Amino acid sequence: MELQQLDMDGGGAAITAAGAPSERSKWLLNSPDPPAPWREMFSSMKETVFPGRRKGKQQLPRTNRALLFMQALFPILKWGKYYKASMFKNDLLAGLTLASLCIPQSIGYANLAKMDPQYGLYTSVVPPLIYAVMGSSREIAIGPVAVVSLLLSAMVSKVVDPTSDAAAYRRTVFTVTFFTGFFQGLFGLFRLGFLVDFLSHAALVGFISGAAIVIGLQQLKGLLGISHFTSKTDVLSVFTAVLNALHHQWYPLNSVLGCSFLIFILITRFLGQRNKKLFWLPAMAPLLSVVLSTLIVYLTEADKHGIKIVKHFKGGLNPSSLHQLNFGGPHVGEAAKIGLICALLALTEAIAVGRSFASMKGYHLDGNKEMVAMGFMNIVGSLTSCYTATGSFSRTAVNYSAGCETVISNIVMAITVLICLLFFTKLLYYTPLAILASIILSALPGLIDLNEAYNIWKVDKLDFMVCLGAFFGVLFGSVEIGLLVAVVMSFGKIIVSSIKPSTEVLGILTGTDLFCNILQYPMANKLPGILITRINSGTFCFANASFIRERILRCVTDESNIEESSKGRLQMLILDMTNVMNIDTSGIHALEELHKKVTARGLELAMVNPRWQVVTKMKASKFIEKIGAGWIFLSISDAVDASIHLKMNGLNTC
Amino acid sequence: MELQQLDMDGGGAAITAAGAPSERSKWLLNSPDPPAPWREMFSSMKETVFPGRRKGKQQLPRTNRALLFMQALFPILKWGKYYKASMFKNDLLAGLTLASLCIPQSIGYANLAKMDPQYGLYTSVVPPLIYAVMGSSREIAIGPVAVVSLLLSAMVSKVVDPTSDAAAYRRTVFTVTFFTGFFQGLFGLFRLGFLVDFLSHAALVGFISGAAIVIGLQQLKGLLGISHFTSKTDVLSVFTAVLNALHHQWYPLNSVLGCSFLIFILITRFLGQRNKKLFWLPAMAPLLSVVLSTLIVYLTEADKHGIKIVKHFKGGLNPSSLHQLNFGGPHVGEAAKIGLICALLALTEAIAVGRSFASMKGYHLDGNKEMVAMGFMNIVGSLTSCYTATGSFSRTAVNYSAGCETVISNIVMAITVLICLLFFTKLLYYTPLAILASIILSALPGLIDLNEAYNIWKVDKLDFMVCLGAFFGVLFGSVEIGLLVAVVMSFGKIIVSSIKPSTEVLGILTGTDLFCNILQYPMANKLPGILITRINSGTFCFANASFIRERILRCVTDESNIEESSKGRLQMLILDMTNVMNIDTSGIHALEELHKKVTARGLELAMVNPRWQVVTKMKASKFIEKIGAGWIFLSISDAVDASIHLKMNGLNTC
Repeated sequence: MELQQLDMDGGGAAITAAGAPSERSKWLLNSPDPPAPWREMFSSMKETVFPGRRKGKQQLPRTNRALLFMQALFPILKWGKYYKASMFKNDLLAGLTLASLCIPQSIGYANLAKMDPQYGLYTSVVPPLIYAVMGSSREIAIGPVAVVSLLLSAMVSKVVDPTSDAAAYRRTVFTVTFFTGFFQGLFGLFRLGFLVDFLSHAALVGFISGAAIVIGLQQLKGLLGISHFTSKTDVLSVFTAVLNALHHQWYPLNSVLGCSFLIFILITRFLGQRNKKLFWLPAMAPLLSVVLSTLIVYLTEADKHGIKIVKHFKGGLNPSSLHQLNFGGPHVGEAAKIGLICALLALTEAIAVGRSFASMKGYHLDGNKEMVAMGFMNIVGSLTSCYTATGSFSRTAVNYSAGCETVISNIVMAITVLICLLFFTKLLYYTPLAILASIILSALPGLIDLNEAYNIWKVDKLDFMVCLGAFFGVLFGSVEIGLLVAVVMSFGKIIVSSIKPSTEVLGILTGTDLFCNILQYPMANKLPGILITRINSGTFCFANASFIRERILRCVTDESNIEESSKGRLQMLILDMTNVMNIDTSGIHALEELHKKVTARGLELAMVNPRWQVVTKMKASKFIEKIGAGWIFLSISDAVDASIHLKMNGLNTC
Repeated sequence: MELQQLDMDGGGAAITAAGAPSERSKWLLNSPDPPAPWREMFSSMKETVFPGRRKGKQQLPRTNRALLFMQALFPILKWGKYYKASMFKNDLLAGLTLASLCIPQSIGYANLAKMDPQYGLYTSVVPPLIYAVMGSSREIAIGPVAVVSLLLSAMVSKVVDPTSDAAAYRRTVFTVTFFTGFFQGLFGLFRLGFLVDFLSHAALVGFISGAAIVIGLQQLKGLLGISHFTSKTDVLSVFTAVLNALHHQWYPLNSVLGCSFLIFILITRFLGQRNKKLFWLPAMAPLLSVVLSTLIVYLTEADKHGIKIVKHFKGGLNPSSLHQLNFGGPHVGEAAKIGLICALLALTEAIAVGRSFASMKGYHLDGNKEMVAMGFMNIVGSLTSCYTATGSFSRTAVNYSAGCETVISNIVMAITVLICLLFFTKLLYYTPLAILASIILSALPGLIDLNEAYNIWKVDKLDFMVCLGAFFGVLFGSVEIGLLVAVVMSFGKIIVSSIKPSTEVLGILTGTDLFCNILQYPMANKLPGILITRINSGTFCFANASFIRERILRCVTDESNIEESSKGRLQMLILDMTNVMNIDTSGIHALEELHKKVTARGLELAMVNPRWQVVTKMKASKFIEKIGAGWIFLSISDAVDASIHLKMNGLNTC
């Protein structure tokens, strides 16, 4: 083997030396203690409190450290120094494109969140500015997004009714936004970045697709010009509400207007996809639609013929909402709960968006830092009349294709939206609601990823079940039920796979000393008189200990029957523990019972390669003394050699 | 290597042939498809519906099959044929000993379950008889037990108040018992034996110890002769209630009587432990105490001086309770829920007891059959005025040491209890409640297993935390909270360990071709220019994919720095996937990103021994095409060889 060329100290000869396997068993049994579970916990906490203090690095002087700290908190200080005028040209263009998409979307999403239009615009001013100085993604476009708006309105509506008490509803939304920011910041500070992984990829695909359809259904209200709509979000309630409305009162003009502009937007998107140079066309189309339709309504006085319009809304700078936050009321617990769920969902979306674009441009995004930035931006947002903001997938894609260089494009967008708020809100008086609905509708196909769903189906059927579960949960239950189904099914899959793990019988691959699953490698041969099984589970614990024990005993029974009929006799059971990373007291009890039953049948039990934690626990529970230290080996070959020795000795003494 | 002596077809030479490793990679990549997840599900369901129909066995004639089926359902048909008179002598003795312990305990546990005394005795008549013909354990003693009685009263009291409406409370208890039996039978029929593993060993030790203390505290009522006691079970409420009572009304005579007999019982137990021949002394002591104390009270008329007595209770045969079952009321859902929890707890206790004694006598207990027997016995029990029965640990131990041979001792016990019910209930009129309390108290130390708790602490600190959690949950929360804490912490441990798995750097063990963790085996050496890491997790999924990716990338960074400073250059990352049993779409995305980042640093990524499911999914997602089929190896040695080839070719072309 060429490998042995590397073997400088001539130890290669030891392979055939008789003493070597037992020597290796000693290495196994006398390995140092593994780190205690809390030591790992402490070191992770220490890293949180004193980040960057890693061994082997020199301590920097205090001023430099302060500068580094500020740069870590405000990445703009770092890259701002290298910012050039040529980059600003690109950012300006991208920012203006972004704003033209952002203004109608913000108004639409505010509508979805059951807030007045100006709050959507406010949310596109302050959070992007905060993110611009604190965030490290260069492409992400910050503002209100569809799924979070839907979740927010679905959950807050249950606590406070937005139609009967709009002011209380708004106060609750701001409080929820504050909690959202608070939790996001907390997660970042405590390095709980892994929390955004609580939704598996499959669950997220299903959930977002379901949410997109639910959002689309909500737009039927605007598109059909219905006044009384259901507050529930599931498919059945919405269809019933629509059917009821179609019998009573609806204004076909709304749908004619909405649908024609929807078709217009979709055509521009198609053109933009065909010709990459026309990327600005689909981005401008929504604003163009708003302007055109507003003009049409204004000129034709269509609002008097049933076309629903935005009417007056308050413009001007973001007002303070400090006194609207409500931490003492009866709903504060509910608000915190909703805040927590929104925080997780918003982070999941933002970090997924940020990471996918960062990976395209080849830089790394630190999840924990992003969380701190998002948290701070939402806390400040909640004080300045904004509701929950996060990274929008559709606008980030537009920002990227518009050629943004840095997060400056977000600043440009925020300023543009602010200008619109200051001077142009009156022009939006005659904007038809149907147009806002069609703008939201046009953004939805991007959220339904059939291609990815097909990939999931191809790769993992169970994952696809999780995806479907989340999808139908949202569609026929509610947004929260969909989320719950997604999380529970995702984790249920982990638990189920650890409750019923597989065990496999190994055979030797001819010409090697590798032992492999005889089903996976049909060319592998079983060794006569020896049954080699491997436990295919990372943990050997209460949840699977009896199951594994029974499976192995059944293997032994089956094998004994076969061996007897072929006139051999099973002499040894080799248990390959390579995959078992951890064991608990139930697992050790199961091993003890296995050992008892196997020896009662006159077999020897050998154990191969128990891992660090497992060896330590077997030593602590004195199981090694029961099985005998001589029956624990580092490799299957060693165990097989020992078995052959045993057989020969047996023959000699016979 | 002696191993190669087994290698008959001369393939041993292939090890050094240059083509072999790539040949082996082909085996890996072209292995047959693994069984689909549902095929495994179907085969398990098929086995449930047609048990025993395993391949390779001849079909028996129909009559024999019917006999086998009846024997499987009623094991008494099988062993009854071999039953001898000499065995009956032992069973008679054991049964009588058991009855003498069972009668006072049953009355006491009925008290704990807030039922009239006769219901405890009823529960010691019918269920043992049913179990005797259907069960397969020989030692288990069936009847009411402390922990289930406590759980039942704690949970049913919340639904129906036993003091204000005793009849409704009783009806609910019977309904719960019916559901308990129903669920137990169902679990058995559907082979859900693994459900009893939902409480880890550690959680069970903690939960039972906590429950024992709670039960002991409940006995303070009887021991102190308190009339008004709290209905809560947590330590604080009980202490407050006791302190209140001590200020107002309590009768010291009760405690004098109770404590003196408690001391008597404990002394007999001590004697019984010292001299195994006196095993009957501790078993008879409770009945003796009852007889003596009843006589004392009767003769001294102590009941007129504040000694609380049992007073009249109804004797006679078990009356039917068919019409008391209540499946239509408002509490039926609650009753089913309580029944489910009781079913699981009762089974967990019974199967733990049965298995530990079966393993002492060296026979096997089929969990699923036991479940069917327990289920049927509780269903019949619920129709004959019994509440939930299961295997009692303390009485089973007495049965065992009294030398029982078969489950006939249970029949003897049931008949004795029945005789007591028919003729002697009037004699129990003057039995003081304090004696019942001290009998229950005397059984509790056996439930608190400090020794096992110490073992758990030694073996696994986290398991000990689970144990403590369950213990304090019962003690300071309630029985249900304790159970919930136990289950959640047990499964939480599995989830946490799969969220943050470890990765390890491997080195070669000099003189072998084994690669091991360099921390566990300090004698292992890293190979120059190659970083070998292993993922220590059974699943590579959404919950840990980013974590693992980041850990590996950090390893690569650290290693690159070291290698650069020592003037070598890291050329290859070998990822040992041996332990990863399963991967989902998030895991594959993480691998793709890892591959992208590693190649961006100019390293080669090789993957070693991806398992059956993993290979299949990597093929389905086309990841193998991305990484290149040539970079997947069956063993680390093969990958290292390939890397050395690469390095040499690199040197040649330079």
